[in-house]
Amino acid sequence: MIIVMSPTATQHEIDNVIARVTGAGLKVHLSEGKLRTIIGLIGEKKLMAQLPLEAMAGVEKAISVTAGYKLVSREVKSEDTVIDIGGVIVGGNNLVVMAGPCAVESREQLLESAQIVKNAGAQFLRGGAYKPRTSPYSFQGLEEEGLKMLAEAREITGLKVVTEVVDIQSVAVVSAYADVLQIGARNMQNFQLLKAVGKSGMPVLLKRGMAATINEWMHAAEYILSEGNFNVMFCERGIRTFEDYTRNTLDLSAVAALKNLSHLPVIVDPSHGTGVWKLVTPMAKAAVAGGADGLMIEVHPNPAEALSDGSQSLTPTNFQTLMHEVGLIAAAVGRKMA
Amino acid sequence: MIIVMSPTATQHEIDNVIARVTGAGLKVHLSEGKLRTIIGLIGEKKLMAQLPLEAMAGVEKAISVTAGYKLVSREVKSEDTVIDIGGVIVGGNNLVVMAGPCAVESREQLLESAQIVKNAGAQFLRGGAYKPRTSPYSFQGLEEEGLKMLAEAREITGLKVVTEVVDIQSVAVVSAYADVLQIGARNMQNFQLLKAVGKSGMPVLLKRGMAATINEWMHAAEYILSEGNFNVMFCERGIRTFEDYTRNTLDLSAVAALKNLSHLPVIVDPSHGTGVWKLVTPMAKAAVAGGADGLMIEVHPNPAEALSDGSQSLTPTNFQTLMHEVGLIAAAVGRKMA
Amino acid sequence: MIIVMSPTATQHEIDNVIARVTGAGLKVHLSEGKLRTIIGLIGEKKLMAQLPLEAMAGVEKAISVTAGYKLVSREVKSEDTVIDIGGVIVGGNNLVVMAGPCAVESREQLLESAQIVKNAGAQFLRGGAYKPRTSPYSFQGLEEEGLKMLAEAREITGLKVVTEVVDIQSVAVVSAYADVLQIGARNMQNFQLLKAVGKSGMPVLLKRGMAATINEWMHAAEYILSEGNFNVMFCERGIRTFEDYTRNTLDLSAVAALKNLSHLPVIVDPSHGTGVWKLVTPMAKAAVAGGADGLMIEVHPNPAEALSDGSQSLTPTNFQTLMHEVGLIAAAVGRKMA
Amino acid sequence: MIIVMSPTATQHEIDNVIARVTGAGLKVHLSEGKLRTIIGLIGEKKLMAQLPLEAMAGVEKAISVTAGYKLVSREVKSEDTVIDIGGVIVGGNNLVVMAGPCAVESREQLLESAQIVKNAGAQFLRGGAYKPRTSPYSFQGLEEEGLKMLAEAREITGLKVVTEVVDIQSVAVVSAYADVLQIGARNMQNFQLLKAVGKSGMPVLLKRGMAATINEWMHAAEYILSEGNFNVMFCERGIRTFEDYTRNTLDLSAVAALKNLSHLPVIVDPSHGTGVWKLVTPMAKAAVAGGADGLMIEVHPNPAEALSDGSQSLTPTNFQTLMHEVGLIAAAVGRKMA
Repeated sequence: MIIVMSPTATQHEIDNVIARVTGAGLKVHLSEGKLRTIIGLIGEKKLMAQLPLEAMAGVEKAISVTAGYKLVSREVKSEDTVIDIGGVIVGGNNLVVMAGPCAVESREQLLESAQIVKNAGAQFLRGGAYKPRTSPYSFQGLEEEGLKMLAEAREITGLKVVTEVVDIQSVAVVSAYADVLQIGARNMQNFQLLKAVGKSGMPVLLKRGMAATINEWMHAAEYILSEGNFNVMFCERGIRTFEDYTRNTLDLSAVAALKNLSHLPVIVDPSHGTGVWKLVTPMAKAAVAGGADGLMIEVHPNPAEALSDGSQSLTPTNFQTLMHEVGLIAAAVGRKMA
Repeated sequence: MIIVMSPTATQHEIDNVIARVTGAGLKVHLSEGKLRTIIGLIGEKKLMAQLPLEAMAGVEKAISVTAGYKLVSREVKSEDTVIDIGGVIVGGNNLVVMAGPCAVESREQLLESAQIVKNAGAQFLRGGAYKPRTSPYSFQGLEEEGLKMLAEAREITGLKVVTEVVDIQSVAVVSAYADVLQIGARNMQNFQLLKAVGKSGMPVLLKRGMAATINEWMHAAEYILSEGNFNVMFCERGIRTFEDYTRNTLDLSAVAALKNLSHLPVIVDPSHGTGVWKLVTPMAKAAVAGGADGLMIEVHPNPAEALSDGSQSLTPTNFQTLMHEVGLIAAAVGRKMA
Repeated sequence: MIIVMSPTATQHEIDNVIARVTGAGLKVHLSEGKLRTIIGLIGEKKLMAQLPLEAMAGVEKAISVTAGYKLVSREVKSEDTVIDIGGVIVGGNNLVVMAGPCAVESREQLLESAQIVKNAGAQFLRGGAYKPRTSPYSFQGLEEEGLKMLAEAREITGLKVVTEVVDIQSVAVVSAYADVLQIGARNMQNFQLLKAVGKSGMPVLLKRGMAATINEWMHAAEYILSEGNFNVMFCERGIRTFEDYTRNTLDLSAVAALKNLSHLPVIVDPSHGTGVWKLVTPMAKAAVAGGADGLMIEVHPNPAEALSDGSQSLTPTNFQTLMHEVGLIAAAVGRKMA
Repeated sequence: MIIVMSPTATQHEIDNVIARVTGAGLKVHLSEGKLRTIIGLIGEKKLMAQLPLEAMAGVEKAISVTAGYKLVSREVKSEDTVIDIGGVIVGGNNLVVMAGPCAVESREQLLESAQIVKNAGAQFLRGGAYKPRTSPYSFQGLEEEGLKMLAEAREITGLKVVTEVVDIQSVAVVSAYADVLQIGARNMQNFQLLKAVGKSGMPVLLKRGMAATINEWMHAAEYILSEGNFNVMFCERGIRTFEDYTRNTLDLSAVAALKNLSHLPVIVDPSHGTGVWKLVTPMAKAAVAGGADGLMIEVHPNPAEALSDGSQSLTPTNFQTLMHEVGLIAAAVGRKMA
């Protein structure tokens, strides 16, 4: 932490800041410029975080030079984290594909979807049993019935199941049926839920919040890791910007950034990331070329009949095309599609 | 809902869309232009919401012309909602002030804060007992101990208490101590929590999500009202933009927009909205001039000692100045400070 | 400038950075923490700006602690700048109102508009003769014919004229007819144009770019002042965000921020800032309560006939209401409407 | 255009709108729903654009269903535009690379850079002779001297030259030395400049404005095409968002979107798009996988000595790596690197 004093700060104010900081158990390093004094703090991050430095008289700003996360950081663990989910490996040189409908709508729809994505080469079945929806009047999901259908589809196809958990109460029931717990974008900073999935020990797919910085996202992951659960995957799904042609702006730079900053695997969801089915395949290819460890893709036997997100879902045929074209990119970057 | 067909849509595609829509129980109104056909849908919103129209062949886009909310809308209830909170009236010609520290830190700090804001003329004491924090290593609040201190401060000063509830589990305990349940920005689309506070029947202060549109915010409120709880106040606290001088960008246009679109009261929080204490008083005045029904202000006996948000908290003296200057604006717009 | 070295930086890399910096004529102040070394730079800003510090091996980031602007800063000139425009004073305790149609459409329309805004108490007539339009097929303005009409309206009413200049070529002709040169949002970083209006010596109204930070905006003003022209007014007109209910998000915090950071007057344009006529009057009141030195308002004799921006223009009657209500706020904050 | 009337609109208001619209030479198609009337407009876009429909009494909103651009649209010209720049083909199955320093700093630096990028396989040399800079005190470019150096580098290496033009005055001189005129992000809506480069007939590289939607960007290109100049390339270089880890957020979805909407080639600049040299190669690969027709990359013989943008420039070695890895992706998507 660096404290930049105002050019008009008095010696008394500077002394006050130093007293406060050293009183909290930190050391200081003083740098007196022509115009202003700069005070560097040396010591425990945690102690610094609790000092309201910018509220002190004479302080212009306090600048953090180190991140507040630890366990998610590549500085702490330099080798890639590889997660074994019932034999399917996420991370390393693997490329995994999670695919299926936005929502579980019926047994038929789900089993058909599962077969389609299995045949095309995916390793995971996605599908929401609990659906967070903007409007209270929209379809909210089949809940435990939907979870049972997902488990049945796993029985039949051997696909692993990834599905969203929306509150603490349902962590246990979702864990009973699923292989991976998904935290949705709207819950990325639902810290109670993060702690709960941390305690569950289950693999977690942590979607990025719509307006979350990479830094905040890494802190959210830190909540899970700090409960002792290191099986966390990031999932980039687009951020909210002024652009309205796409539903969100898929931030692929975040993938490369995370691969530098953290050891955890990164999945990309171009379906929610763009909201436009025509853009899903090009962006899936771009994601893999840019370093993603996996993809999450919405596929529906008949998008025009879907109860949610039909306009961003791929038809079975389009999904096969995606898998073929992504395979060419994967080969070019040395990734193995399991 | 209006469906805009692509200029290259075939008659067969147009017929398909019409069949699908009428099959769902809706009527259509066809408009054939030179370049393209436009299909208007007439009927229940709910039926339309479940059609994945943009996924159908030949459809360029589907445009919603009516909002998905009902109960929050001024079209449904034209007169202003006025909420009586233990005798303090929010809405109508009143202007209420909610003030206090960001977090409850200790009994002394809280009681001192309560006395300060009471003396300066506020009606509500704010203070967080449960603190959602970006980092798991930051101060997380005193929890139920903090709630007890808030209740004690109420005993002594007569101030009403507004405090945040962060999960379903604690709705009951917070309701036992507080007068108003606050839903924080990060939980604005925590739909399970919205339903729970809806069922509680308690007055709710619904903060705007960092990246929430006015439309989504109204839908979030609709979740609460649809549980039969009409005692809801909006609280504008800034949105996330590219500007980094301020912590958020306080969107005062949203106040005027909400007063047009909805009958519910609107509170403004310029402390979180700007993150810079020097901007709090000017923005508080602007909020009242622009039509806000109340203010939420962070005040700390000694901001430089605060465990969180010190840089945006007012000193007791600055808060008195704010109350004085806001009073002049309130008088100019015909608002009564209780 | 502060250079934060990476925790893995070698002594050799640290020495290299120091050598490069001192070689450029700067002094350094070294601070060696437990984890990393921090190098403070002391000396001329200009020298620092030309060092690509972040490209040097071992450097994690370089943090600027001082602004790149000088002449616009309140640190350089602490008292408010007051601009005398042919006897109308902008700044100080005055509140000025600039009003009129978005575009000059015809002599009749303009003269009628001028009379309306004059009668309601405005001091400036606004109206575009050169119109930057998103589409090449939209109405582009009457150009010099429009300027002549503005000058005629000034003759008749005594109002001062503010109008946009869109390129260097027309600085001379616009200066011949207008009292204030307006730089539009799209040209805020058209640096050649900024230098040209700087050299003209004319009063300049500098609109904020749609995606400009306050810092960049102040730098844009610095371009004008650095040519010796100190007669510059900022004009907040909304920034681009994800919110789509309003055309832009009017950032009133920027007004208070600028009044702290700079000595120059600040005008607010709630017409473009919101794009919705119903929000113009509440936001005009908010702007004045928040410290604005003036308002720019679109008024049209018949908005439904306007060739541009009709949906955000006030009718004559609504403008009279605005002036009355703004007058009450002005009185409450001690501003004099000229 | 579709006009949505308010639920409270009177028959008189509806009649008024119809009269106004038909009076302007348009036909209407009326759709009367349960709650509201919707009026479809049929006829010339240009006529519609000049009606201020939202300002008319009883109108809730006017929704445009067709784009305002024509010549840039794939609906008008379905086959890809291919541009021949002195024998180098942009578009089709080719992949072109434009590389070089941010700014021309000296003859030595430029000639060395040119040789490096030539040897690594690029077809174009980039380098700014006129530099738009946020601060008036930053290095502003060598101007015509710089242009001469670029031309000399072309002589020696055979590379084509792409360089920025910042105002109308210098269109002629830049055209005399360069092969492609670059319009920078800050000038994307400098409409006078767009018209001037349109008239020049020179190939144009049109960078996206920081806050420009895809729609606005296409309209900006339309300005150039409407002057008869069809040799236009889009260049995605990142948009401004809340994320601050990267300098901008590179929006690769825009590439796929443009390839659908327009026939013009699309280039991607991951150097400005990310601002972080470590992210440049992954994003270059992502861009090509996602469908880009070319790349623009900052390369500097010694980034740590650069006068601008050093932190995002590649070293010669890193650029060779990029070219190698991009080549693998190009092969996977069937692109030929010239």
